[in-house]
Formats: sequence, structure tokens, C-alpha cells
Amino acid sequence: MRTHIDCIPCFVRQTLDSVRIATQDEKVREDILRRVLRLCAEIDLHSNPPAMAQKIHGLIHRMTGVEDPYLDIKNHCNKLALQMYRQLKERVSSSAKPLETAVRLAIAGNIIDFGVNSHLSMQQVEQTIAESLEAPLDIQTVNAFEAAVSEADRILYLGDNAGEIVFDRLLLEELAKEKITFVVKACPIINDATMEDAQITGLTDIVRVIDNGSAAPGTILEDCSPQFRRRFDEADLIIAKGQGNYETLSDVEKDIFFVLKAKCRVAARHLGCNVGDLVLVRSKVRATARER
Amino acid sequence: MRTHIDCIPCFVRQTLDSVRIATQDEKVREDILRRVLRLCAEIDLHSNPPAMAQKIHGLIHRMTGVEDPYLDIKNHCNKLALQMYRQLKERVSSSAKPLETAVRLAIAGNIIDFGVNSHLSMQQVEQTIAESLEAPLDIQTVNAFEAAVSEADRILYLGDNAGEIVFDRLLLEELAKEKITFVVKACPIINDATMEDAQITGLTDIVRVIDNGSAAPGTILEDCSPQFRRRFDEADLIIAKGQGNYETLSDVEKDIFFVLKAKCRVAARHLGCNVGDLVLVRSKVRATARER
Repeated sequence: MRTHIDCIPCFVRQTLDSVRIATQDEKVREDILRRVLRLCAEIDLHSNPPAMAQKIHGLIHRMTGVEDPYLDIKNHCNKLALQMYRQLKERVSSSAKPLETAVRLAIAGNIIDFGVNSHLSMQQVEQTIAESLEAPLDIQTVNAFEAAVSEADRILYLGDNAGEIVFDRLLLEELAKEKITFVVKACPIINDATMEDAQITGLTDIVRVIDNGSAAPGTILEDCSPQFRRRFDEADLIIAKGQGNYETLSDVEKDIFFVLKAKCRVAARHLGCNVGDLVLVRSKVRATARER
Repeated sequence: MRTHIDCIPCFVRQTLDSVRIATQDEKVREDILRRVLRLCAEIDLHSNPPAMAQKIHGLIHRMTGVEDPYLDIKNHCNKLALQMYRQLKERVSSSAKPLETAVRLAIAGNIIDFGVNSHLSMQQVEQTIAESLEAPLDIQTVNAFEAAVSEADRILYLGDNAGEIVFDRLLLEELAKEKITFVVKACPIINDATMEDAQITGLTDIVRVIDNGSAAPGTILEDCSPQFRRRFDEADLIIAKGQGNYETLSDVEKDIFFVLKAKCRVAARHLGCNVGDLVLVRSKVRATARER
């Protein structure tokens, strides 16, 4: 998915959000913002939005010296989500359609985006979960997802954020875990999950976890390690979580199920849905990939 | 009030909102946005936010050739507000405290900001009015306002937006109209009221109306005509409507009552209130002005 000019106010806002976390020095904040504005003025609209986000957060890292501004937030989110794990697990187990429920909860984890809404109350989280269990979801695609997972031998599950990965765990536990490799980012980038988060949340105890060699908030294949790219090529199914993975992989020829909430107008337009919709969608270009 | 780095995402968003109205040409939209990003990268944070808004909208005008992109919106807003005039007038007349009610409705008109929320339903407008009639308001300042208006001989009422000026009319009708000159912008700027709006809404029939010689969305004295500046100097009281007038006049040494809703965090912080609060506040620097 290409960057749209509508993405630019978001880049600017995200910059401010992040510099506010990374430094208290108003002059440094201002300098970073001015540089980001110049970057945005020259942006290549053929690139995808996470490519710019990666540049911005790299700049914040270099100019503040803070490698992982979201560390405390990520730890907090993991802890909060882990506190909910047992009761969510119970909801999946007692559901008449455990896989569908697990998919819905995985999307709920993406909706909550603890990192972005770090002041969420438990009540709001509960409400989001309740809504996600009731909201429209394409059940045909849930069935296709179940069949594809059952047919596949090697599955990559591309993770998204800290906290959210506890919700992914619920879905992983409904799938054939031995076929699945869970993927985290190689370095801190916003609140995206890294190996440390996978360890803290117990994901490493239940599935194989690797990093993708990249610090983009999505999966920019050219930026990933050769090891990860080989795994990606060899996999016969990809489960890609969150909007960042959709934005970076929507044009890649591969059998991919995207699991996310549409969080902005640009992505919703590209997906052909409304902002806020639960999305489970299969990549459109997989046939071409298989014919190669 | 100085520009804060937090104002910049807003400038970028406003640019997109306006280019979308002014032109359908995506390339022109993109070119304008890139130029605005460069302007923002070099912004003088000592200037006030409306100074940048004026630059941005001047650029949009020059690059699209469209002088008044908000014309249809302004006409629509005037019409909508005029439809409500009679029942609002009745609310003021039947109120136990007509002046306070008129102040509240004038702020409601500022809250509604028809131009920004052009798809508002009548129900939402009604709800905003009901809330504005109940929300906390500094009654001591309402009393001080009443006394100041009564003492003053020459009052300038600096208007804000089209549509909203119908709500201002309710307040004007509670004051000694012969002492008041209502001020509009000299040229189209966003949805700010111009002489045409004052005529359409009947304001010119009840008070003297002049323009300030400027096309800034606020009152930047250095940008105003000598005629307006003389009137401003001679006035013994200023009623300044909306956030743009607050942002441009908060540091001016003059007896000013600011009447507005605090619409963003930057202005709310400067005012010492919360976003969304009804604001009737007297300028802090008037004493100095009188002592000169």
C-alpha cells in the first residue's frame, strides 16, 4: 500500500507523540519535528507508510540517544494483557466456535493498541473485547483461514505490538502450533513486539519465535534479514497481524491472511471497508504467486 | 499566544482539509502540501498560529486560483443558523438572565463551527446548544462583562465565523447596539465572516459593520488597515470572538473580553482551562494599557 498525502498529518502527530516520550528537552523536540517536516516534504509517495515511520523513529533514536522510548509502555501493556489471559482463554474454550472467537480476540488486541492508548481503563478494554465478539466478521474467510491453516505445513505469524501478542497467543493455541513460527521485530520500534516481549508473555514457550532482522513497524521485505526472507519464501501461509503488516505486504505475491482493525481512512479505503471494521482478509495476489 | 510545536499537525491537517475543498487535482494538492510542510519546517514559533494559517491559505489561493473555497459552506452555515434564529431569540427573551443566555449562545455558535463540521445534523446542533446552556461559565466575569459594556462608549466586537455571527447577533441585541461596531475580515479566509456574511445574516441592519483590512483568521494588528487600527486604539472595550482572535490578541494591552470555546490543547493550556470549556475571560494586560 502506497503512502497517501492523508498519511502525513499522522506522521507529524506520531513524531510529536514519540518525542514527548523520548525527551523532555523542548529544543530537541522542535529540532526533530523540523527535520521530520523536511523529510515529509520530500516523501516518496510510492513507498509504504511504515518506511517513513521507520525513518522518523530512527531519527528520534539518533537525536535523543534513546533507543527504546516505549520500553516502559510495552512492559506495562504486556503485564496488563497477561492479567487478562486466563479469562480470555476461558472465553475461547467455552465458545461454540473457538477459532472464530480466538480470531476476534486477536483483532481486539489489535484494536486496543495499548501503546497508543496507554491510559486505557480496564473498562474500556473490556468494552472493546465485548464489541469485537459481536461485530461483523467475514465468516467465509474464517472458514477459508481454518482450511488454509490445516493445509499448510509452514506458517509464519507476523506479530504486531507488545500486549497485543498475548491476544495472538490465544489464536496460536487454537492452531497447530508445531507448524507455526512467530515473528517479532529485531530492534525496538514504537510499541512493536520484540523477542523480549515474546519471552515475557510466554510466547517463546509455546511456539518457535524468530525476529525479522528489521526495525520497521511492518514487514518491509527488503529491509529484513536474509534468514527471515528465506523463511518467508519457504512458508506456504502467512498470518500478518496489524495495519503495519498490511501496509507493507498488501502488494506482495504470497498467500497471506491479514488480521487487523482498520485504524485510518487511508487503510480502510485500500481495504474497501470502514474505519473501525474488524478485518480478516486473504491476499488477492496469492494465485499469481502459486503459478510462478 | 505563540505557536507551539503541537500546532503543526493541525496546520498540516487543515491544509489537507482546505485543498480537498479547493481543488480536485491530486497533483496540486500534493504540491501545496509539500510547500506547507517546508513552511512548517521553517516556522517562527514566536509568531501566533493564525499568522501561519494566513500563509497557508494564501498559498492555497495562489496555487489553485480559488479565492474563496469555503463560499458554499459559509452560505450554507448562514442559512442554517438563520433558520434557528427565531427560536434562539425566544430562548434569550424568556430567560431569567438574558445576557448570560446570550453569552452562552454566542459561545455555542463558536462551538458548532459549522465550517469545520459541515456535515452537522440539526440534532447535534441542538445538543451543543443545550450543553452550552448548562455548562460551567464564570458568572463573575459575566457580571464584569455587563458592567464593562455599560461603562464603555466605543465597543468593537470582533467576529469569527459565518453562521456563528447569527449567534453573535443574539448577544449584540442584548447590548447597547449604538455603541458597538462589528468587525469582519476584509477578504475570504477559511470560513471567517466577511461583509457579505454580515449582510446576508442581517447584522448590517442592526449595528455598524466594518472590515479589519486583513485576511488573517484572527486579528493580527500589524496586518490590519490603518482605519481599523485607529478604531481599535480608540475603542474602550473589545469583545473578541473565537480562538483565532484569542491567539492573536492575548498579549495585546487592551481591555478585551474573549468569548470562545477552547478547541485545542495548546489554547486550553494558555487559557488555563480544559479543551471544550466555555470561555469568557477578560484580558490580563488591560491595567497596563490604561496606565500608559
